Amino acid sequence: MKLWQKENTITSEKIERFTVGRDRELDAHLAEFDVLGNLAHAIMLESIALLTADELAELKTELKAIYQKVQAGEFEIEEGVEDVHSQVELLLTRKLGDTGKKIHSGRSRNDQVLVDLKLYVRDRLKRTVEATEKLFKALNARAEQHKDDLLPGYTHLQIAMPSSFGLWFGAYAEGLIDDVVQLNAAYRLANRNPLGSGAGYGSSFPLNRILTTKLLGFEGMHHNVVYAQMSRGRTEQAALTALASLAATVSRLAMDVCLYNSQNFGFIVLPDALTTGSSIMPHKKNPDVAELLRAKTNRLKALPMEVTLVLSNLPSGYHRDMQLLKEILMPAFDEILDCLDVATFMLENMEVKTNLLDEARYDLLFSVERVNELVMQGVPFRDAYRQVGREIGEGTYQPPRNLKHIHEGSIGNLNLAEINQRMANELARFEFDQVETAFQNLLEA
Amino acid sequence: MKLWQKENTITSEKIERFTVGRDRELDAHLAEFDVLGNLAHAIMLESIALLTADELAELKTELKAIYQKVQAGEFEIEEGVEDVHSQVELLLTRKLGDTGKKIHSGRSRNDQVLVDLKLYVRDRLKRTVEATEKLFKALNARAEQHKDDLLPGYTHLQIAMPSSFGLWFGAYAEGLIDDVVQLNAAYRLANRNPLGSGAGYGSSFPLNRILTTKLLGFEGMHHNVVYAQMSRGRTEQAALTALASLAATVSRLAMDVCLYNSQNFGFIVLPDALTTGSSIMPHKKNPDVAELLRAKTNRLKALPMEVTLVLSNLPSGYHRDMQLLKEILMPAFDEILDCLDVATFMLENMEVKTNLLDEARYDLLFSVERVNELVMQGVPFRDAYRQVGREIGEGTYQPPRNLKHIHEGSIGNLNLAEINQRMANELARFEFDQVETAFQNLLEA
Amino acid sequence: MKLWQKENTITSEKIERFTVGRDRELDAHLAEFDVLGNLAHAIMLESIALLTADELAELKTELKAIYQKVQAGEFEIEEGVEDVHSQVELLLTRKLGDTGKKIHSGRSRNDQVLVDLKLYVRDRLKRTVEATEKLFKALNARAEQHKDDLLPGYTHLQIAMPSSFGLWFGAYAEGLIDDVVQLNAAYRLANRNPLGSGAGYGSSFPLNRILTTKLLGFEGMHHNVVYAQMSRGRTEQAALTALASLAATVSRLAMDVCLYNSQNFGFIVLPDALTTGSSIMPHKKNPDVAELLRAKTNRLKALPMEVTLVLSNLPSGYHRDMQLLKEILMPAFDEILDCLDVATFMLENMEVKTNLLDEARYDLLFSVERVNELVMQGVPFRDAYRQVGREIGEGTYQPPRNLKHIHEGSIGNLNLAEINQRMANELARFEFDQVETAFQNLLEA
Amino acid sequence: MKLWQKENTITSEKIERFTVGRDRELDAHLAEFDVLGNLAHAIMLESIALLTADELAELKTELKAIYQKVQAGEFEIEEGVEDVHSQVELLLTRKLGDTGKKIHSGRSRNDQVLVDLKLYVRDRLKRTVEATEKLFKALNARAEQHKDDLLPGYTHLQIAMPSSFGLWFGAYAEGLIDDVVQLNAAYRLANRNPLGSGAGYGSSFPLNRILTTKLLGFEGMHHNVVYAQMSRGRTEQAALTALASLAATVSRLAMDVCLYNSQNFGFIVLPDALTTGSSIMPHKKNPDVAELLRAKTNRLKALPMEVTLVLSNLPSGYHRDMQLLKEILMPAFDEILDCLDVATFMLENMEVKTNLLDEARYDLLFSVERVNELVMQGVPFRDAYRQVGREIGEGTYQPPRNLKHIHEGSIGNLNLAEINQRMANELARFEFDQVETAFQNLLEA
Repeated sequence: MKLWQKENTITSEKIERFTVGRDRELDAHLAEFDVLGNLAHAIMLESIALLTADELAELKTELKAIYQKVQAGEFEIEEGVEDVHSQVELLLTRKLGDTGKKIHSGRSRNDQVLVDLKLYVRDRLKRTVEATEKLFKALNARAEQHKDDLLPGYTHLQIAMPSSFGLWFGAYAEGLIDDVVQLNAAYRLANRNPLGSGAGYGSSFPLNRILTTKLLGFEGMHHNVVYAQMSRGRTEQAALTALASLAATVSRLAMDVCLYNSQNFGFIVLPDALTTGSSIMPHKKNPDVAELLRAKTNRLKALPMEVTLVLSNLPSGYHRDMQLLKEILMPAFDEILDCLDVATFMLENMEVKTNLLDEARYDLLFSVERVNELVMQGVPFRDAYRQVGREIGEGTYQPPRNLKHIHEGSIGNLNLAEINQRMANELARFEFDQVETAFQNLLEA
Repeated sequence: MKLWQKENTITSEKIERFTVGRDRELDAHLAEFDVLGNLAHAIMLESIALLTADELAELKTELKAIYQKVQAGEFEIEEGVEDVHSQVELLLTRKLGDTGKKIHSGRSRNDQVLVDLKLYVRDRLKRTVEATEKLFKALNARAEQHKDDLLPGYTHLQIAMPSSFGLWFGAYAEGLIDDVVQLNAAYRLANRNPLGSGAGYGSSFPLNRILTTKLLGFEGMHHNVVYAQMSRGRTEQAALTALASLAATVSRLAMDVCLYNSQNFGFIVLPDALTTGSSIMPHKKNPDVAELLRAKTNRLKALPMEVTLVLSNLPSGYHRDMQLLKEILMPAFDEILDCLDVATFMLENMEVKTNLLDEARYDLLFSVERVNELVMQGVPFRDAYRQVGREIGEGTYQPPRNLKHIHEGSIGNLNLAEINQRMANELARFEFDQVETAFQNLLEA
Repeated sequence: MKLWQKENTITSEKIERFTVGRDRELDAHLAEFDVLGNLAHAIMLESIALLTADELAELKTELKAIYQKVQAGEFEIEEGVEDVHSQVELLLTRKLGDTGKKIHSGRSRNDQVLVDLKLYVRDRLKRTVEATEKLFKALNARAEQHKDDLLPGYTHLQIAMPSSFGLWFGAYAEGLIDDVVQLNAAYRLANRNPLGSGAGYGSSFPLNRILTTKLLGFEGMHHNVVYAQMSRGRTEQAALTALASLAATVSRLAMDVCLYNSQNFGFIVLPDALTTGSSIMPHKKNPDVAELLRAKTNRLKALPMEVTLVLSNLPSGYHRDMQLLKEILMPAFDEILDCLDVATFMLENMEVKTNLLDEARYDLLFSVERVNELVMQGVPFRDAYRQVGREIGEGTYQPPRNLKHIHEGSIGNLNLAEINQRMANELARFEFDQVETAFQNLLEA
Repeated sequence: MKLWQKENTITSEKIERFTVGRDRELDAHLAEFDVLGNLAHAIMLESIALLTADELAELKTELKAIYQKVQAGEFEIEEGVEDVHSQVELLLTRKLGDTGKKIHSGRSRNDQVLVDLKLYVRDRLKRTVEATEKLFKALNARAEQHKDDLLPGYTHLQIAMPSSFGLWFGAYAEGLIDDVVQLNAAYRLANRNPLGSGAGYGSSFPLNRILTTKLLGFEGMHHNVVYAQMSRGRTEQAALTALASLAATVSRLAMDVCLYNSQNFGFIVLPDALTTGSSIMPHKKNPDVAELLRAKTNRLKALPMEVTLVLSNLPSGYHRDMQLLKEILMPAFDEILDCLDVATFMLENMEVKTNLLDEARYDLLFSVERVNELVMQGVPFRDAYRQVGREIGEGTYQPPRNLKHIHEGSIGNLNLAEINQRMANELARFEFDQVETAFQNLLEA
């Protein structure tokens, strides 16, 4: 049953399945936000006299009841109902009759879906940021714990200079800060109110869009109604782009783990819970979890391109194509949250090998130290470089093992406090509590 | 229960879910092929004396019973069983004890999965080719039906020269032939036997790979065992690349339909079953189905990139990352088959407007005809071109409406028979009956 | 001549060409930044006593002279010199002998390239933001100019509701604000100091990284030296991602222009300077410029994926692969700047058709207005919707042409001032003058 | 000077530069094919009496003279001439006056460009196939040379089973065969004649398209003229997709080389010509060439997506967007040819370490051999597997080092002859000599 469908239209089941797609399944995640959007819209309609105070009171009661149902996991989209918006309207109309119908005044399905998606994306980006912070803390803790455990540093996959587990863990921690910066840009795009833009061309009702912007805790509104509609797709794109950036960080970490776990490196040991055996080789302990983490995050990196392909060269104005973006967006949030969770678990439970640099095969890691010794004695850099090259060739080179790296961010001075502070600063920009307060007010209004 | 799992390993539920992913759901589609692969492997093992004739007979009976179950839709992967391969082995072991265990000799899970995937991809490409042929026939039929119905031809979205519905439908028909060429390249990559490559390094058993190649109806084998394993990922990639090519054809057709259905063009009318209304605009008949067709096929074009991202820069040798490719590949086949089906339905049911070129606004479509008239009278082309430009500017231009296009592939000579013949030639290259015969022999052996 | 090359190595010309690639050509754009990076590094070296005051004075004089040369367009990379870094060092060594060699102390080519790239990306993002602001202003001016010129609004490419040129131009203006938010995220990643990270593992010299951070006007430093190196690739990726977002906005605008310029829409007229004719059709005025604008911006959307493919699954630590990113990044900035320039020119010079909605074929655009009239008279929305549907079916529908849209962002209330203010706020976040001041101080120090 | 430009049009230099782009530079590669296309078209025009025998004779003489110029490297596009087509026509008109103008009869710039591109792509695919064959031969030779040199085989980057350099080299050789299959699909799409399709809607002249198809050595024609035009973009796409497949093979090989060259693996040694040093680490010998090979081939994998983005959602009919595809396509051919050349050089010159498996750390590679020994003694596979697992755990495991792999494609039986034969079969499908013969006839006609 489609509330807005022209009478007497027969749609074959095949076409129905093709158009509805996974909407009913995915829309379950939007229910909570659809109710909140309805609440804000109803309050606004009353403020401009399109609903009476009594009608608003009735609607509030029913919408809050539906909200409770959603929170309790009891809300469902009934058989034959197309999507979450129709289901909510159906519940209202069943209870309130004509009043239930009135709530669609001054609104189109297009801006209703849009507002739901904005609230959904905003919420899921918040969860992503929180999970990122957990991984950040795990990395920082391991960096502090292993700041003195040296590790061969590579360039070109060749033995280069001494590194440490402190540096390695800390590097990924700092990387997550830049991911949070990207997430913030996406969050700000999601955090703007499209309600009131109707089908993309506004309304002749004297809607108060400033009011709904405030009620829903948005940073501001998409002013231009045509642009509000254009933000469909862009919002998803920006969110997925930020997830892709984060996924790239996790993916690289997983690649390092797979490599360092290879017997030819042997820098780390993964716990049994994270390895699996082979069906024919009785000696194997394979890092399947790290590999799947790598694969899943690599795949996430393709999703912005999927959105781009759906949107490219579509003229302005809404197209049904945009519905498909939910199928790309929503599972991506579930996937990244899973990946962050597993990555954190992996980080916390992997074992780190110590005294790695005592092996003779890593002696050459210290060649730059030897060059720098000579420079400190007054030899010009390029000459010192040549001299050490000769020493290595002639077999007279002695690795100077006592490292004295003290500058910012070096082995001896990891700057973990500074990195922590930067993350805290970036997190503060989100002002998550503003949303929470707005929603509390809305539900208690 | 994992048959090959090391004892005493505790794997948390979270990790289990993360690693198994959608395997159990997706593996259901592989069951049929896993049984056939087992049959061929068992017959070969007996031929090299790793199974006795009696053991083989028992295994055949059980495997055929499982095959019947699969065909009847009664096969399922039990709770706690990891995947289809374990389920089949479990059924065999339950019935046959030690004999059930012996079937894994000379084989690894890696080549078992590979052979299943090869057979699956080969089968789904066949179905895709068949659905493509149906769309081809629908297009050709409409081309024949409307060969005399003219249509404005555009370049740069500007009115250019006369076209016809015959040309338009026929163009997409011919395009599908080139898609079939791409599908054939993918098919040939899928149509090679990896069985016997083990985990990617072969086996010390004297396997007879020529025999299994023949039993499973393959065109040939992947000889080098390391390459057989490398074909994992490549096979999926090639298949998805061919689907992407086909999707691009359908996507462009859908774009044309959406445009031609716009009131500003008004060249076609979609049946009610393919349109939907608006929640606020009572006059709307939106081409949602064509739009979703466009979006879904556009999305399919991204999938080869997903595979590329998972595989890029992985060194040779199997990695668990490859398991994730099933989640990309398998839904893609379902999607393209749906899209081809809906596109065929749309093609067969859309109404075509006639006499479109009688409107004065299309007069300029005939300017090249006027130029050519002058050329036929002996005026050099560049001069005739200038003269007609002047006629248009001065308002003396008269459109010569009687078209006489007779060359190959032009409005008056659509070459539909030739195009039909080309498609038939390309389809014959697949030699689908060889596979059918091999499978019949295998099941009756 | 490679300053750092091992003696006695013969490299064939072919390999030389393969490895150097387009470096010499592209590095010309880095010269200015390489000199500034050298200046900051030299000042810092003197502060930690690795250079004497006299040596620093000499180096400053020479570096400023090179800077003047660059500004005057007289700097060039000599035949046989590998890149910009070698060329600058060569010039210093020619003049200053040993002192010229000393400037490489405490530094690696890796962090030298990195700092050049950071300064380059920061500069080019600034130029991009400035060009975006110009396009924004042109759009806003046209929106104000045409706020009363109505335009058909489409959804699903179907006639939907009244729009206006004011809304259309204004929508793209507002869209650019969100692009600027993305550009800012990229800018902040570029605006961090990697100098001192050496080859990615720091230095045993007591470098003062806080000093070089201040001298080069960075917002802060990449603390962790391993992460500083990891930011190679990420910086390019973030910049290209922001350009892709901006490109998508321009691309969609170009698509609208091509469509609206088609005779079947006929909403705008492009100036002759932006159209070209056809070699066979004397009547054509094709929108080639808009089409190339569309194509070039569409292509730009692929570049983040190129970077992703180069970086995917590379373990941490520098790899020469990253050198190739310059070939992707640098032409992209030139391209987007060209596109923004041409788009602004196009916007300022296109002619807009007026009174478009007087044509009867656009009558249905006002159906929602009619529904809303009824709602204002007390009819529940869903019932009003059905009544207007009946009126249209029965031919009694009368379009109510006097629009009274007054809410924020609607036809009658474009919110241009608010949109202007938002852009101003976003631009202020860049704090471009901090960089300018730092560079002035550095060159005058 | 544009021959087909409307009089009195002033185009600013900026717009000129924007629209012409790199056309003049890239078109130089098309000159040879433009002349051949002209020759075929002229012969056909005479056959339908649109040229006299004398005019044809004159045109042939001049066109052959231009062809000689091109072959001698003396052809150039003069300052102010837009592209190669205009330049050729200009040369003809200078010499032959009106006769030079007549050659454009029955043709549009659109099908002229198309035919040039088809011939160009066909030619470059041929060169690519030939370079692939060289690499194939180098790999096969090394496989034969090192068939007895064992190498650790990895799965999950974990030590797995014995492999060999013979297997490793041979795997990549066999992989190239599947790339050649993809190249063949692309070749067949390029090998169809679009001439006669005009601007995409055919011509009222009684063109003989069968004749030009034969003269230019095409396998057949694109029959439908609308489809002929649609093949623009598709042809490029198919070619780039095949190059991407080939690039993926080379990229993976380069990744293996970088890894195997790392001190932690140490399986191969690269010649000095293929390594470079470090500016701060005197001991380094970095595999820059292999890394750039990896990066360049990885980047090539993105190019099909660039084409997809330019084409997506463009309605049928020519758009100027397609011009941009030359900038993507043409450098890609140069790049892949360079990469294949360097890869072949690298393959032929790398040194292979022997007796690698004598090291104790590789003992576990033989665990499957031990399992199989037990199976051959009658122990069911799953039980043998468990027993060897116990032996390893208890330290009683003895690696059985004498490998007896004899099945097809295994260490002891590389199937190099079979692989060679398969490549020969695939190469024969191209029928390159048909093109050569056609061109000779055309130039001697």
